[in-house]
Amino acid sequence: MPKEQLEKKYYLGIDLGGTKILSGLYNRELSFLGKNKKRTKAERGYKSVLERIVRCITELLDDFDVQLGEVAAVGIGSPGSITRDGKVVFAGNLGWKDVSLKKDLEEILKVPVFVENDCNIAALGIYHHELKGEPENMVGIFLGTGVGSGIIINRHLYRGSHMIAGEVGHMVIDLFGEKCNCGNRGCLEVYASRRTIFKKIDDAVCKGEDSILVDMVQSQGKDFSNLRSGDLLKAIRAGDKCVEKIINDVADYVGIAVANVINFLDPDAVMLGGGVIDALEDYIMPILIKRAREYTFPGIPQTLKIAASKLGDDAGITGGAVLALRSSLGKSC
Amino acid sequence: MPKEQLEKKYYLGIDLGGTKILSGLYNRELSFLGKNKKRTKAERGYKSVLERIVRCITELLDDFDVQLGEVAAVGIGSPGSITRDGKVVFAGNLGWKDVSLKKDLEEILKVPVFVENDCNIAALGIYHHELKGEPENMVGIFLGTGVGSGIIINRHLYRGSHMIAGEVGHMVIDLFGEKCNCGNRGCLEVYASRRTIFKKIDDAVCKGEDSILVDMVQSQGKDFSNLRSGDLLKAIRAGDKCVEKIINDVADYVGIAVANVINFLDPDAVMLGGGVIDALEDYIMPILIKRAREYTFPGIPQTLKIAASKLGDDAGITGGAVLALRSSLGKSC
Repeated sequence: MPKEQLEKKYYLGIDLGGTKILSGLYNRELSFLGKNKKRTKAERGYKSVLERIVRCITELLDDFDVQLGEVAAVGIGSPGSITRDGKVVFAGNLGWKDVSLKKDLEEILKVPVFVENDCNIAALGIYHHELKGEPENMVGIFLGTGVGSGIIINRHLYRGSHMIAGEVGHMVIDLFGEKCNCGNRGCLEVYASRRTIFKKIDDAVCKGEDSILVDMVQSQGKDFSNLRSGDLLKAIRAGDKCVEKIINDVADYVGIAVANVINFLDPDAVMLGGGVIDALEDYIMPILIKRAREYTFPGIPQTLKIAASKLGDDAGITGGAVLALRSSLGKSC
Repeated sequence: MPKEQLEKKYYLGIDLGGTKILSGLYNRELSFLGKNKKRTKAERGYKSVLERIVRCITELLDDFDVQLGEVAAVGIGSPGSITRDGKVVFAGNLGWKDVSLKKDLEEILKVPVFVENDCNIAALGIYHHELKGEPENMVGIFLGTGVGSGIIINRHLYRGSHMIAGEVGHMVIDLFGEKCNCGNRGCLEVYASRRTIFKKIDDAVCKGEDSILVDMVQSQGKDFSNLRSGDLLKAIRAGDKCVEKIINDVADYVGIAVANVINFLDPDAVMLGGGVIDALEDYIMPILIKRAREYTFPGIPQTLKIAASKLGDDAGITGGAVLALRSSLGKSC
């Protein structure tokens, strides 16, 4: 390792989402030291988000008495499609088109920055940190505001020929099913994203079904779109049949999508993550796994791992630190 | 190249199917020299099929005045899941379970034999011969008696963690659709295999629909299961609305499955092959491509190639020769 590199003891992983920015501080062994969170406030525009990313980092470093000069590299996961040179081509929920995220952050931080798609980076974190890089092939599927995935093939991130592999959210599994934002019908995302889950509950309530969430919303003066994934588990635990039915459907549909992925790619492991899974893991995973096993081809061994990641919300920052460490050492991811 | 290898001027590619065996003779530049065909007669058992493979080879060599001693290697594509050491674990339509195809053929032929799954080998043939190994990532989807696929990732055959990647035939695309032999509903194979296409026509006719194929069947004293994919095109060209509707559905479903594969794996090319495509190419491909483009994610460029392979029935033997040449030279496939 070059001397200069040795003096730089820290790595930063950043998870940039539509609603929040997470930054995580790691040492050279990639042990987690601490993290910080800020709202994204994407509506204020690109420059403001850049500034908030920088503040999310500097506040964290200050808490741990670390200087920017001691940081070897920053790895950042951003929504959307990312070019090899760290430009974000398009990120709908940030309102970004062709922004030079790597270059702009490097100019401000004076530290090497590496940018990758958010699902890819979460998969990378789970693969290297949680699974210790052991499987040869792994798919990470993430259910959050939207639905996406990251693919590890032959122990490396697989980005696809146009850097947009993993669009599992628009895999059609129910051809004559409900309409998706993309214009097609029956995409996985219609059944399994946080956005569509709350829309379904809202629709059911409008049609006269009872849900405990109605009281929750009214007492807090919110609407359904303000509820969190965690509220879903509270409702199910409290005997809310409307929410239970909708979440059972989520588990079924995602289970079948997991089977589709397994039958096509035959990986060692499929790891689930994202806000919906984190909040509902204990309830949703047994149903999801049962359905996935029913739909996998007989030749697939039962030893194939289907599990919720234990990294939870930290998958992205962990993957960011992995990307930062490996990329700054010239290792491929 | 070792001297002994230089003296051996020929490579053989074998495509072993449920109904027929094809053997192809190639020179060191993998130019096609000639081929031979025999019925498989799987019902006679494994030893008989082995003998018929050998006869399919020896007859071909005899036609071209080539001695077995001049053959450097044999590459064979077999249905079913294949181990790294050339055993066929299970091949339903041959009635095989745990047979040592590589070892048994090598004992008879005294020539190195390499065995691979039939869809993998067809994909390999298309990739190296037709596309000259240019794309980084490619998927070959084959519609024949069943439906399968072969995947090329980073310019190499991707076999999966348990050697059974590519089971696209059991990708669920219509969750509440028709029942598949595998027990699930809405698998691609229910809509797109030769077997199910003829079953659908049979069902439609039983329900009172008119089809020109009824006359064809009656005049030949056959039933629908004896018809060939080529008869479908004849029927459509003759204005058979029943067959046309069923084939339009095939094109739609396969188009959507192609889009699912593209959205997930983001390859440079998806190549279609197999008996159904070979026979119906001119009719089916425009509909299939249109549907696939409609369902692919906006970020996927229109330059992504979706096409029917020009190798037709020879994809398997070509891939067999590629496997034989590369494996005997110690190159990975």
